[in-house]
Amino acid sequence: MVNPETVERVLAAAAYLDYRPNAMARGLKTSRSHSIGVLVPDLVNPVVPPIVQGIEAVLGEAGYVVVLGNANHSREREQLFVEAFQVQQVEGMVVFTASDDSGMFEALVRTGLPVVLVNRTVPDGSISAAIPDDPVCASLAVEHLVSLGHRRIAHIAGPQATSTGFRRREGFERAIARAGIPHDPRLVVEAARYTEEEGARCCTSLLASAPAFTAIFAANDMLALGCYDALDEAGLRCPGDVSVVGCNDMPFAERFVPSLTTINIAHRELGTSAARLLLELIEDAELPPRQIVTTPALVVRESTAPPASS
Amino acid sequence: MVNPETVERVLAAAAYLDYRPNAMARGLKTSRSHSIGVLVPDLVNPVVPPIVQGIEAVLGEAGYVVVLGNANHSREREQLFVEAFQVQQVEGMVVFTASDDSGMFEALVRTGLPVVLVNRTVPDGSISAAIPDDPVCASLAVEHLVSLGHRRIAHIAGPQATSTGFRRREGFERAIARAGIPHDPRLVVEAARYTEEEGARCCTSLLASAPAFTAIFAANDMLALGCYDALDEAGLRCPGDVSVVGCNDMPFAERFVPSLTTINIAHRELGTSAARLLLELIEDAELPPRQIVTTPALVVRESTAPPASS
Repeated sequence: MVNPETVERVLAAAAYLDYRPNAMARGLKTSRSHSIGVLVPDLVNPVVPPIVQGIEAVLGEAGYVVVLGNANHSREREQLFVEAFQVQQVEGMVVFTASDDSGMFEALVRTGLPVVLVNRTVPDGSISAAIPDDPVCASLAVEHLVSLGHRRIAHIAGPQATSTGFRRREGFERAIARAGIPHDPRLVVEAARYTEEEGARCCTSLLASAPAFTAIFAANDMLALGCYDALDEAGLRCPGDVSVVGCNDMPFAERFVPSLTTINIAHRELGTSAARLLLELIEDAELPPRQIVTTPALVVRESTAPPASS
Repeated sequence: MVNPETVERVLAAAAYLDYRPNAMARGLKTSRSHSIGVLVPDLVNPVVPPIVQGIEAVLGEAGYVVVLGNANHSREREQLFVEAFQVQQVEGMVVFTASDDSGMFEALVRTGLPVVLVNRTVPDGSISAAIPDDPVCASLAVEHLVSLGHRRIAHIAGPQATSTGFRRREGFERAIARAGIPHDPRLVVEAARYTEEEGARCCTSLLASAPAFTAIFAANDMLALGCYDALDEAGLRCPGDVSVVGCNDMPFAERFVPSLTTINIAHRELGTSAARLLLELIEDAELPPRQIVTTPALVVRESTAPPASS
């Protein structure tokens, strides 16, 4: 039995010694937080909700509360959330935002917490991840456009420090080669972020300086939407003058004008897979990292058509 | 100076006595979490991101980290997050999800934490809130439709336990009266949730059993989108046969077919106002509750036109 005053004195002394009561309490059964931190890149991109819902469904079932941190495309904010989640004693993290150039992977490993990546992965596979089959996303898009008769196909690549950006671009280039089309690097531009604005900027840049093309594969649907705006601005019709294929099949994709041909990624399934990987790691921290890869599917809508010349 | 082992023994004893180390630590300066919990109704509704961004901008500036909980329209989950935020020692909460029938307001007050509502409010004004001027939202919509020549105007109301649902419905009925149009209760249906599916269900129900109407004011844009689907299903054109006005001016509203006439609510400003109210309360817990009301604006796009008969 301990006098509350004694407890307070000990805690005050511990604070003086820079003992963190939270960290100390971590070992006590009663202090388990039953919470998991999820770090998302932004809240505007409509692929985030279904992934989060998948994560929440599995972790909720397992008795965990999921708290979200919105990095809003800022590396400083990513870092801040990783620290905040530790202070809040989360029992694990699911991270959407990982990119190769931010020191993020090292920071995640340093936490010592169970961590799983979702949608993105780390080049050396050293952290468990649930990801889409990015090369297949790209080849489905290219094969669809080639089957319509397109040969001059441009690619708006995602940020190359992200696995989705890098792997889809690689997949695009291999699919172009497989179709027997000579590779023209002028037809590939890289977006700095996955936003409509960047999609518009890249499309405008292609129109201004690339050789003539009849179709664009954009590395995600937000970039594809930006293409709509840039084509419109340039007085070009989609798909009459330029076909556009996105990637994700995000909510509302069927409502845009024209409705967007895209690659469906089972985002909810990505979330449930990531959550299951995390539960395995919480159970056994020594498990070797592994990846779960989901299979994408082409969804043909109204933004693609045969090229005008064919 | 305290031996770490002693600290551990005291903490173990405290745990046995059901002292919560986290709660105890709350008083120690070093244990301040610098975090704020934000409870959102769902992640699919596109008004959530700009409100969250407004909150994050102001609180980030003030040195706080914002963590999000997604209630996903479940009262059980709302309650769970309120508890989880307390365990995580958040220093305050901003709540989007409050409704009148869930015991939520009492639960929030019981936490003893600084709490601010955003977008929604409590009927007796006992909790500080940043809200849109809901009656003006409704009257802007009705006045626009009346100016086009509509007289038979239906309303798809939001959930009546939410202040947005209740106050916009009241505003609708008063605006109809001001326009000299007899009130017909058969032209008002209540959605159970702010979702596309509920909008479609309510619109189908109006088409099946209400007297003929030429326009709908939907209490938010998600409900309005559901009207598009139901009208389409029924072989009716918007705005040719039925005009539709939403409320929120959510992202993508200008991209739908037809682009949506709606009431713009300055969502980011709602977020910044809520965050400022919360900072005031953190500074001085004794401050009386107050409301900040933002002024909405009509945005005319392609989903409204004069009625076919005029």
